Amino acid sequence: MSTASNATGLQLRSLIRKSGELELSLIEVPIPEPGPEEVVVRIDATPINPSDLGLLLGPADVKTATSSGSGTGIKVTAKVPQTALPFLATRLDQSMTVGNEGAGTVIRTGSSDKARALEGKTVSMVGGSMYAQYRLLRVQDCQPLPPGTTAAEGASWFVNPLTALGMTETMKLEGHKALVHTAAASNLGQMLNKICLADGIGLVNIVRNAQQASLLRGIGARHVVDSSAPSFLDDLTQALVDTGATIAFDAIGGGKLASQILTCMEIAINKTATTYNRYGSSVHKQVYLYGNLDLGPTELARNYGTAWGVGGWLLTPFLQKIGRAGQTPLRERVVNNLKTTFASHYTKVVSLPEVLDVANIAAYTKRATGEKFLINPQKK
Amino acid sequence: MSTASNATGLQLRSLIRKSGELELSLIEVPIPEPGPEEVVVRIDATPINPSDLGLLLGPADVKTATSSGSGTGIKVTAKVPQTALPFLATRLDQSMTVGNEGAGTVIRTGSSDKARALEGKTVSMVGGSMYAQYRLLRVQDCQPLPPGTTAAEGASWFVNPLTALGMTETMKLEGHKALVHTAAASNLGQMLNKICLADGIGLVNIVRNAQQASLLRGIGARHVVDSSAPSFLDDLTQALVDTGATIAFDAIGGGKLASQILTCMEIAINKTATTYNRYGSSVHKQVYLYGNLDLGPTELARNYGTAWGVGGWLLTPFLQKIGRAGQTPLRERVVNNLKTTFASHYTKVVSLPEVLDVANIAAYTKRATGEKFLINPQKK
Repeated sequence: MSTASNATGLQLRSLIRKSGELELSLIEVPIPEPGPEEVVVRIDATPINPSDLGLLLGPADVKTATSSGSGTGIKVTAKVPQTALPFLATRLDQSMTVGNEGAGTVIRTGSSDKARALEGKTVSMVGGSMYAQYRLLRVQDCQPLPPGTTAAEGASWFVNPLTALGMTETMKLEGHKALVHTAAASNLGQMLNKICLADGIGLVNIVRNAQQASLLRGIGARHVVDSSAPSFLDDLTQALVDTGATIAFDAIGGGKLASQILTCMEIAINKTATTYNRYGSSVHKQVYLYGNLDLGPTELARNYGTAWGVGGWLLTPFLQKIGRAGQTPLRERVVNNLKTTFASHYTKVVSLPEVLDVANIAAYTKRATGEKFLINPQKK
Repeated sequence: MSTASNATGLQLRSLIRKSGELELSLIEVPIPEPGPEEVVVRIDATPINPSDLGLLLGPADVKTATSSGSGTGIKVTAKVPQTALPFLATRLDQSMTVGNEGAGTVIRTGSSDKARALEGKTVSMVGGSMYAQYRLLRVQDCQPLPPGTTAAEGASWFVNPLTALGMTETMKLEGHKALVHTAAASNLGQMLNKICLADGIGLVNIVRNAQQASLLRGIGARHVVDSSAPSFLDDLTQALVDTGATIAFDAIGGGKLASQILTCMEIAINKTATTYNRYGSSVHKQVYLYGNLDLGPTELARNYGTAWGVGGWLLTPFLQKIGRAGQTPLRERVVNNLKTTFASHYTKVVSLPEVLDVANIAAYTKRATGEKFLINPQKK
């Protein structure tokens, strides 16, 4: 390729100092030289997912964010509460790269046949350090996109799609036959509906208002309950009876919703039970919390016997559990359906310096359903 | 035996009516005739465990309890809140027998050699319907007690001892190396300490006052932290560092304690971690709630990453998981150590009519650490 080997590219860095100060900046790093089985990808699109914010901002209070400098010299600082620092011991004073997934064009390849076969191809990627202009990657970690699929379409190929597929796969692995999803009108929730409709899986969608309910019904969702309706708990119980769902994935985290789901599951199970069990039904009811839209405490009423669990759920341990062999059919299903089932929609496309704009930070940390930023690192 | 086959014995019954009224009473039932592989045991001792109260009283408000009649004709009624009735659908209007475990003397046997070998023996039993004067039992469900062990010593042989052993066994099965226990000065907690000392297992005892702490230290407990001390969270974290405990069994249920345990586990793990994980440590942290000393909601702060779980824990599903073959060595360990590791202490011995005494109900439902009633069904 024509790119000189002493050329550099921008890379976003996040640093939390022992003093409790977060600093975001852009640095110039050399474009690396690929080994025989490696390629260099020019990153054209990389999304800001909620799952990126933990590393990008940590527990910093974004209301304290201020910026200095301009262009690629922009720096943002914000305060991290002292109480949060003990949880960050292993990252303090280390400049961290950010960005879980992205897509772009292979601009330089290693000497192997497999590497050279990728030259000029549009590929999707996962593995961190995507908030940058260039990324060195092993050949086996590139996922070539079908002809006609753009980098912008392939940028969000992993985190949301594999999370949605991870939910239906976890449901199956843990012996449940249908599932519940909250904040269900999100990008992820819409994907999950399309997957469940395609695969014939019962899905109970919990949304927070009537607009979100009609959005989901508009894409074919069969069981939609509105947590703002006075009849919410009865509606939810009926949907649980109809589907037999005994596992839920909750994006909200805080408040009473996870517990209400367990309560309604227990009532739904007892409606069809034939024998009394003094400790509640023996059917295991599970809620996995995978998001934190409500940062308040989770309140569990425990009026659902003893056969229940609440826990964290994260994509990475699930992927480790199923292994690369289990992932391959899921990865291929995604890239072949990026314009339909796994399509993402963005509210704004920003450059790398614009990621560090204080007004943009306020927008992409709002955790509002439907709000989603895409970074184009090549944008000036 | 000399007992006439038309003789009867008292049996305690619990009935919750669709109207929301709980009724406790004693009825006379015929002493059953044993089949070839069965025996009849005269029950001499059966404890009132917290795990019996669910079936005995359900969610009735014991403050509304009133009694009528006297002697064996005594009846108690109390109100069950209407909101609780949907959870009880499968037991409404059914007269239920009560009592998980007990011990007594074999007074009549079936014709098989195995049955006749038990004649006159003192045996421990589990399986319900123990709040009665007589119990029909299969030979293989009798656990003969060693010579010199009384029925009163063998009455609480199963629920507490197997629960304590179930905790250390669950710890091992789920890949943890040490454990935490709350309300740790209880009968059960003292047993657990003796087991852990005998087996060399690290145990962090959480107690609620200094008296309980010295009680446990007096029986050799090595890690005791007092949740009423200002230094509680630091003390707990240090004990978790010292033991490496990543699983807890919590008898309290409500409030913040389960969450505080997870928070301190995460801090303890991070103190020895070498790499930063943006989602918190990848070490799974588990709290099982097995009791309800605090009936309020469980509040989870979720400041411990995503590798955590909170759930109900109950002896029966654990026993089903390990099967009878897995249980046999545990059962034998218990009956051979009923005067030492698995000794129980009672605050009061009552007759069957006295179980229905309103003042006694108030006492044995107080859920106070150390308060424990033993029923002697033969007591007049």
